[in-house]
Amino acid sequence: MKRYIIALGGNALLQRGEPLDIESQRNNASVAARAIAPLIGPNEVIITHGNGPQVGLLALQSAADWQAPNYPLDVLDAETEGQIGYLLEQELMNVLPPDHRCAALLTQIEISADDAAFEEPTKPIGPFYSETEAQKLSKQRGWTVARDGRLYRRVVASPHPKRIIEIGVIELLVQNGVVVICAGGGGIPVVRQPNGTLVGVEAVIDKDHASALLARQLKADALLLLTDVDAVYADWANPHARGIRMIRPDNMCRLAFEAGTMAPKVAAACDFVNRGGSMAGIGHLQDAIAILAGEAGTRITEDVVETVWWN
Amino acid sequence: MKRYIIALGGNALLQRGEPLDIESQRNNASVAARAIAPLIGPNEVIITHGNGPQVGLLALQSAADWQAPNYPLDVLDAETEGQIGYLLEQELMNVLPPDHRCAALLTQIEISADDAAFEEPTKPIGPFYSETEAQKLSKQRGWTVARDGRLYRRVVASPHPKRIIEIGVIELLVQNGVVVICAGGGGIPVVRQPNGTLVGVEAVIDKDHASALLARQLKADALLLLTDVDAVYADWANPHARGIRMIRPDNMCRLAFEAGTMAPKVAAACDFVNRGGSMAGIGHLQDAIAILAGEAGTRITEDVVETVWWN
Repeated sequence: MKRYIIALGGNALLQRGEPLDIESQRNNASVAARAIAPLIGPNEVIITHGNGPQVGLLALQSAADWQAPNYPLDVLDAETEGQIGYLLEQELMNVLPPDHRCAALLTQIEISADDAAFEEPTKPIGPFYSETEAQKLSKQRGWTVARDGRLYRRVVASPHPKRIIEIGVIELLVQNGVVVICAGGGGIPVVRQPNGTLVGVEAVIDKDHASALLARQLKADALLLLTDVDAVYADWANPHARGIRMIRPDNMCRLAFEAGTMAPKVAAACDFVNRGGSMAGIGHLQDAIAILAGEAGTRITEDVVETVWWN
Repeated sequence: MKRYIIALGGNALLQRGEPLDIESQRNNASVAARAIAPLIGPNEVIITHGNGPQVGLLALQSAADWQAPNYPLDVLDAETEGQIGYLLEQELMNVLPPDHRCAALLTQIEISADDAAFEEPTKPIGPFYSETEAQKLSKQRGWTVARDGRLYRRVVASPHPKRIIEIGVIELLVQNGVVVICAGGGGIPVVRQPNGTLVGVEAVIDKDHASALLARQLKADALLLLTDVDAVYADWANPHARGIRMIRPDNMCRLAFEAGTMAPKVAAACDFVNRGGSMAGIGHLQDAIAILAGEAGTRITEDVVETVWWN
C-alpha cells in the first residue's frame, strides 16, 4: 500500500473559459473523481485542490455593497473549502464502492507573520479596477494594488506554508482508511500570535506548496500535481519545446518556467523531492495512474541520472 | 466520561440585530468556545451550529447578477459549514490546551425525496420581493414563493433528516479524542437516487432535528440545544409565563410553542428522549454546564414524574 497526495489544479476543476456555475464544477469534480478512484483502495489517497476562480468570485460578491462589509480572505478561503470539498467528496463517494469512507476537512495552515511575501504582495485576487478606483480602495482599505494588464487589481501576499494545524487529524483519518480531502485552496492562512493563539490573515497560500508540505508531513510515497497540461515542457511556447519525462530536481531547477501555471508546481515538486520525498509527478488529470507508472507526465525524482525526454 | 452533542443556535452565534460582519461572528464564536471549553477534556464533545443568517446572505449575493448563476442551497450550505466551522474551530483551539485536537467536517445528511415537506415548502430564505417580482421568479426559476409580512419570499422544504453520511468518520474522530464540529446548518441536504448515487437538493434541514439524529446515532449521553433564551417557557409572552425546569417528553408535547424559535428545539429534544436518549437540555449558551448539572435551563427526560418549574 502506497500513500499518495493528489493536488487538483484550478484548471483541472474548472476548464479555461468555462462559466463558474455549479453544473460545470460538479461535472469537473465527477471527471476528477473518476480519474482518481482507481488509486483508492489499493492505496492511501489524500486529495487537495485549488480555489482561484471560486475565491475570486466570493471576493467580488463580498466586495459589493451588501448588508455586510468585505469578508477577509481567510474566511472566504474557508467558504471555498466548504463548496469545493463538498462537490469533490460527493462525486468521489458516487464512484467509489459503498464501503469507502471519505472526509472533507477544513484545514488551517500556519504561516510566518514576517514572511518576506508580506513586504511584496504579488498574488492578484478579485475584480479589476481603474487606476483612480484602485488608488481610492488602497487608501480606504489599506490594500496593496498593482497593475494587471491595462487595469489594476488588489494583490495579496503568498507566504510559505510552515505547519498544517490539523495534521494529526488527517494522519488519524488516513491510517483508518478514510479518503481525506483537505488543504483546499492552499489551506486557510493563519499566524500564531505572541500569546500563542491563532488568527486568520489576508493572504493566499500556494496550493502546490501546501500540498508539498502535506506530502512531507504525511511521508507520502508520491506527490501528484494534476492540471490540464500533459507534462512539464522545457522551452514551452517555443518550436523546440520538449516534454520532460524524468528529471532530477537539481536539473529541473536549472530550467526556467513562466511565473503563471508551471513555476509553482515545479518549485513544489522539487521542494518535496529535495527534502527526502521519493517522487513528484506533474501532468494531466486523466493521466494520474499513468504518471505513477512512468507512462505519462513528468516525474521529478533522484532515481534518474540524465534527464529523459518525451519525443 | 460522557458524550455530549452541543447545538449552537443561530441566536447564540449572532445576537439579534447584530451586523453580519466577521468581527461580530468571531466574537460570538469566541464566547461560545469559552462557554463550551470546560466540558471538553473530561467528556467527548461534538458541536453543531445553525447557519440561517449566513446562508441567507450568501443566497442574496448569489442571486444578484454576477458572472455565475444562482448557486443551489446545498452548495451554499456547504459554504457556510466552511465559514462558521472555521471560526468555531479556531476560537475553540484558542481556548483549549494545546494537546486538544479539533476537526471541522463537512457533513451531508440524507433526506427522503418524497418527504411530505416538499409538497408544502415552509422555510423562508433569502431576500424579500414584491408580489410581481415574486411571481416572475417563481415562473423563471420554478421557486415556491409565499407571503412574509407585506412582501414575498422564496420558501423551501425543511425535510426530516434520515441518515448522516459521514457518521462513521465522526464516530472515529470522537473515539480518538477529537472535538468534532459537524452538521453545520443542519447538514448539507442530499437524496439518494435510484441508481444509488447522492445528489444535493434545494432544502434546509432543521439544525435541531439534525443534532437530535446525530445524538441518537452517536448514542450521546445528552443533547444540549443552546440559544439566547434561558429556558423553555409555558405560556411565553404571557404574564403567567413559567420556565420549565424538568419535564417528561410526553408532558412537553402537550404544551404549545410558537412555530419560530422554541418549537423545533422542543420537538428535537422530545424526539431524542422518546427514542431512548437519556436527557436533552435547552437553555442559554452561557449556562451549558449549569444545564447539565440541573441548575439552569430546561431538562427533558423520562427521569422525572411531575413537571418541575422554575419560580
